[in-house]
Amino acid sequence: MTALIGIDWGTTSFRAWRMGQGGEVLETVSDGPGILAAGALAGGFRQALTDTIGGYLGTAPVIASGMITSRNGWVETPYLPLPLDAAALAGSLTLHEGVHFVTGAVSDPDGPAPDVMRGEETEIIGHLAGGGTGGLFVLPGTHSKWARAQGGKLVAFRTVMTGEVFGALRDHTILGRLMQPGPGSEDAFRRGVESGRQGGALLGRIFSARTLALMDRLAPDQIADYLSGLLIGDEVAQGARNAGGSVTIIGRGDLAARYQSAFEVLGMAAQIAPPGMAQRGLWEIARMRGLA
Amino acid sequence: MTALIGIDWGTTSFRAWRMGQGGEVLETVSDGPGILAAGALAGGFRQALTDTIGGYLGTAPVIASGMITSRNGWVETPYLPLPLDAAALAGSLTLHEGVHFVTGAVSDPDGPAPDVMRGEETEIIGHLAGGGTGGLFVLPGTHSKWARAQGGKLVAFRTVMTGEVFGALRDHTILGRLMQPGPGSEDAFRRGVESGRQGGALLGRIFSARTLALMDRLAPDQIADYLSGLLIGDEVAQGARNAGGSVTIIGRGDLAARYQSAFEVLGMAAQIAPPGMAQRGLWEIARMRGLA
Repeated sequence: MTALIGIDWGTTSFRAWRMGQGGEVLETVSDGPGILAAGALAGGFRQALTDTIGGYLGTAPVIASGMITSRNGWVETPYLPLPLDAAALAGSLTLHEGVHFVTGAVSDPDGPAPDVMRGEETEIIGHLAGGGTGGLFVLPGTHSKWARAQGGKLVAFRTVMTGEVFGALRDHTILGRLMQPGPGSEDAFRRGVESGRQGGALLGRIFSARTLALMDRLAPDQIADYLSGLLIGDEVAQGARNAGGSVTIIGRGDLAARYQSAFEVLGMAAQIAPPGMAQRGLWEIARMRGLA
Repeated sequence: MTALIGIDWGTTSFRAWRMGQGGEVLETVSDGPGILAAGALAGGFRQALTDTIGGYLGTAPVIASGMITSRNGWVETPYLPLPLDAAALAGSLTLHEGVHFVTGAVSDPDGPAPDVMRGEETEIIGHLAGGGTGGLFVLPGTHSKWARAQGGKLVAFRTVMTGEVFGALRDHTILGRLMQPGPGSEDAFRRGVESGRQGGALLGRIFSARTLALMDRLAPDQIADYLSGLLIGDEVAQGARNAGGSVTIIGRGDLAARYQSAFEVLGMAAQIAPPGMAQRGLWEIARMRGLA
């Protein structure tokens, strides 16, 4: 019997889970349309739901988190201030067209560098629900999030644009000019991370991706991995400064492994969280609200 | 009477000076084709010379510096190692099709982050020829150069890709999405420089160009100036670390003024060099070689 349907709905991704009485996953849909694609459907977001989990709509409450509550999503909801926990998120659900939307979080709204997230807060809540009350969390991606939890609450976070900047540098600057596609080189990646140790401005260090290639000291099919290492290495070195406590990477596949590798090169240890943190967070928030 | 013709020939710029017996400028041509444009002419670089300074060819030695000696230029020349001075450059001129080419410089060729320049060394030599033996030099641009001179020699330098990265971020990331063109805001620029003081990873700080705009705390026509300030501020803060001694900006117009302004916001002083450093450097190198 279906107790809850949870959706992690991002700009270019859609993952839904049908959960049973104990929060266990009965079925997963991972190939639904992201917000950009769903918004372009004739029937919009409602049609996207019908197309993906239509057979179960009406059988259980639906809860969704992610960029779906942003300006370009289905319904724009305000951000919750820090510190926040599952109870705060449960108390701020927005019910819209039959879906309970989890809202995002804002950090330092009146300070010099305000920051926002939508979706990652639910993944962190999912991790905290499994035990552990604090530590540093890294959620790698186009816009990576670095978050800190304490006493079971999310207390601080910062967005780092590493993934998107890497793409812009590769595709639209001189650094991409000599690049050739390759099988992926862990060595070149680690060499890039090491370059982060040299100090000096990041916008200076990245130029070595060109000079090393010009001098035949970096193969054309390794330049991209080297540059990726340089950027992720800088992100990790700066983000883990004064880390203390445990470090948990919430992410999947190669990217999570690369972040773990960068921590290792820089002499630190980081765990990769088991998969399913978003689903678990959605369950936890729904349970707190009495939906499941 | 013409004693020397000097050319500063860059990727997208061409400036030539006809100089008299004392190195004084008799005539300036500043609208010639850069290397990309000249290389595409039917008659190539030779035709570009004929079109721009043809009337004087044969009347005096011609000396040229800049990216014209790079792989995509007229003749590729090797890089000189540091430290170097006017005499070293004069001793390494390459005569090709009647033009004496000043070669570029390489820093740390076997180290983890080798670096190269072509053209800026001549401008620094030009400044040193006017008195002063050392200090920190900043040459702002698509690829800014930060160089240090000591005892009349260029001893170290580093390329920082600020200008090109700014363009890539503006045109090809989410940061440009909310931007609108404006008259140029010195206030927004300075605010961006100030953000550099907050610490944390640069790729994190730049995200404030989006969040401040999302929260209506930065006007759409000020986002670009703010982002420019953030990047230049980071470059200056990192580059001027342990500066000591004098700081000289070699550059023109608004960009040089913005760098000076960034130094000021960060509590440091920098002088803008008088114009004509490339011409003066070419004269100095030619004179050392006995060409003028």
